[in-house]
Amino acid sequence: MGEAGGGKRWNFGANEVVELSCSQYVRYYMNVLADNLDPTDNRPVIPLAHGDPAPFPSFRTDPAAVEAISDALHSGQFNHYANTSGLPIARKAVAEHLSLGLSYQISPDDVHLTAGGHNAIDVLISTLAVPGANILLPRPSYPMYNARAGFSKLEIRSYDLLPEKGWEVDLDVVEALADDKTVAIVVVTPCNPCGNVFSRQHLQKIAETASKLGILVIADEVYRNITFGETPFVSMAEFADIVPVMLLGSISKRWLVPGWRFGWMVTVDPHNIMKDSGLVHSLVNVLNMSIDPVTFIQGAMPDILEKTKEEFFSGKMEILRECAETCYEEIKKIPCMSCPYKPEASMFTMVKLEPSVLEDIKDDLEFCCKLAKEESLMILPGRSVGFKNWLRITFAVEPALLKDGLSRLNKFAQRHSKKKLQP
Amino acid sequence: MGEAGGGKRWNFGANEVVELSCSQYVRYYMNVLADNLDPTDNRPVIPLAHGDPAPFPSFRTDPAAVEAISDALHSGQFNHYANTSGLPIARKAVAEHLSLGLSYQISPDDVHLTAGGHNAIDVLISTLAVPGANILLPRPSYPMYNARAGFSKLEIRSYDLLPEKGWEVDLDVVEALADDKTVAIVVVTPCNPCGNVFSRQHLQKIAETASKLGILVIADEVYRNITFGETPFVSMAEFADIVPVMLLGSISKRWLVPGWRFGWMVTVDPHNIMKDSGLVHSLVNVLNMSIDPVTFIQGAMPDILEKTKEEFFSGKMEILRECAETCYEEIKKIPCMSCPYKPEASMFTMVKLEPSVLEDIKDDLEFCCKLAKEESLMILPGRSVGFKNWLRITFAVEPALLKDGLSRLNKFAQRHSKKKLQP
Repeated sequence: MGEAGGGKRWNFGANEVVELSCSQYVRYYMNVLADNLDPTDNRPVIPLAHGDPAPFPSFRTDPAAVEAISDALHSGQFNHYANTSGLPIARKAVAEHLSLGLSYQISPDDVHLTAGGHNAIDVLISTLAVPGANILLPRPSYPMYNARAGFSKLEIRSYDLLPEKGWEVDLDVVEALADDKTVAIVVVTPCNPCGNVFSRQHLQKIAETASKLGILVIADEVYRNITFGETPFVSMAEFADIVPVMLLGSISKRWLVPGWRFGWMVTVDPHNIMKDSGLVHSLVNVLNMSIDPVTFIQGAMPDILEKTKEEFFSGKMEILRECAETCYEEIKKIPCMSCPYKPEASMFTMVKLEPSVLEDIKDDLEFCCKLAKEESLMILPGRSVGFKNWLRITFAVEPALLKDGLSRLNKFAQRHSKKKLQP
Repeated sequence: MGEAGGGKRWNFGANEVVELSCSQYVRYYMNVLADNLDPTDNRPVIPLAHGDPAPFPSFRTDPAAVEAISDALHSGQFNHYANTSGLPIARKAVAEHLSLGLSYQISPDDVHLTAGGHNAIDVLISTLAVPGANILLPRPSYPMYNARAGFSKLEIRSYDLLPEKGWEVDLDVVEALADDKTVAIVVVTPCNPCGNVFSRQHLQKIAETASKLGILVIADEVYRNITFGETPFVSMAEFADIVPVMLLGSISKRWLVPGWRFGWMVTVDPHNIMKDSGLVHSLVNVLNMSIDPVTFIQGAMPDILEKTKEEFFSGKMEILRECAETCYEEIKKIPCMSCPYKPEASMFTMVKLEPSVLEDIKDDLEFCCKLAKEESLMILPGRSVGFKNWLRITFAVEPALLKDGLSRLNKFAQRHSKKKLQP
């Protein structure tokens, strides 16, 4: 006890698993970068580190979505607690929305509403984390999966995405990594952080590989339909006949409202494999004791999904396409970096850094810290997504600010390049 | 692997820890009761099982709170991701709100905003769950603590609340249960499910006991200021000089908006004990990878906390006081039950059932299932809060509906009583 001889005064303290699993999460690096900002620099800070275009005028959400929320709020009918998997009207609306253009009809019973994509990841990963199990996660990663798996003591086995193959999954590595304790593979398409979207053919190969391995496919489609290049978005749900698929999604990116915290977890399970295994039962039990999305946002969902016009989406895609183009072209001009793949989806691109051509910067972290300090420009070091000496850059900011940021980046790189490389 | 000889086809399945820890949670019993409802009964279902008065006209929230949300939503300034512990304006507003009438000044830095009280419990319990640790939880319980502790493999040691002493903590048992692996004691005041509120003197004794044991006090004050009897609400924060206190709270109950999912976790730590121990650092790391409250609700918080008038609260307290009175008086008239304590706080009362005087009902679960079936009346069996053969009843529903419910309860009890007891 606290006062017993030799014992410490207080019994509580740090949690080492937390310190190991979560301390290197995106927000950790965001805070490191923020600490490096120079408060005497009067220029605006340019945030290319995390994907959140919501503050910018060009990325304002659709007024129809705002009015849908306002109507639900003012009705007074949605102040109460929601139920386990969400309000029936909202589950139905999401099921119909996701079934559009899909050859499989999603049932409202398959839809479990979550407080954004993060909540879905938390619920799903903690349910899958049975003793001894492991999970296949992509590298570069969306690091929330890694942090949550580490916290739940679910062993992480990272498979590579291949820059030289348009960031496709290295399926040979996937097969080599898996064993009979592997419960699932996570695929993120459209991809944060790589800016690609998997083709129909590649999705089918992933599904076939997962089926062969006896593992679940977790398809993170948070950037669903955020595509502006040659390759159209295809949902992994198309291949649920081959392998059971857990779809994760949210309105955060397509409606540009990450602060609204509304997402879903959908079991696409035509052969009842997930259900019969007991996994769905356990998932619902975890949902029973988890956060729900705000009830009046659930109440607004039918109107949000029905009344947002196609022109809203196409207009935003056109801006994103131009931003991606600008980003790719400007990075080409910078001596110490290269971009192996022109982004055509999501809001990010991965850029390779060559520290050898820099005078006084040894790696990605030092690069990003000095960049924050000298240029008030925030870019995420690649190590935060498992790729040391790369950079993760978002292009989803106000176009004028993006151009300014890329210009600062170029000047910074020139200034720190070895003399012989300077003009 | 899936197709290997002898192996099962699929590697994933149920999570046994989930099944053990979460399957008996409140929502589980709610679903059991709902399954027993008779669809041919045309009377309205009367929900006295869970505390959510929000759907009822007498418990409509203050229009000022709705307008605050509406203004923040329409401003377009709060669609973005929030930051780890919440927007500074919201943290400041909560700190000022909680400091009112307190002899200790809470700093905005002490305030960590959460997506309702449940989210705070999840973050806190999972952070405290280091290997070998145990936590002291009340019995009768607020079972979210038990479910979350079980899921995080944090050993639960239950101490009794004493009905004969106005549901005070049995401090002798607390001392006997604790050892050097005990990290915290949870106290819920005002109390769900007992309907009492701890006096200043009793709080001080709890603080002194916890200090002696070297453990943290988690004060769940979700029902803060929901008192309508003789004993005023006193915050455990008053005793933070004796022992570090983690305050949990939310707007769910006082503003009657559980669906808005806004709460807080406040470290009241004048001697920096929690901070120096590393606990606060770990908590912030878990918050880094956890859900945030909806950003526009955070943005509305200064207005919600400032502009809701005292008359709103006093009016609702008067209705609750009358509901508690009705509930207590009507239960007195029912042969098979007794209420040892007249509720003067929160929205619940615990009622003792005497199955021996009932003809064909053996325990609390059978009582509640038959009650749901025969009377379309939902009441929670006491076993869901750790007290078998008791009942947890909420009186926070529309007064006319409450009277109707208590009348159905009386008729049901009469009908199932042994013949000799009937008039």
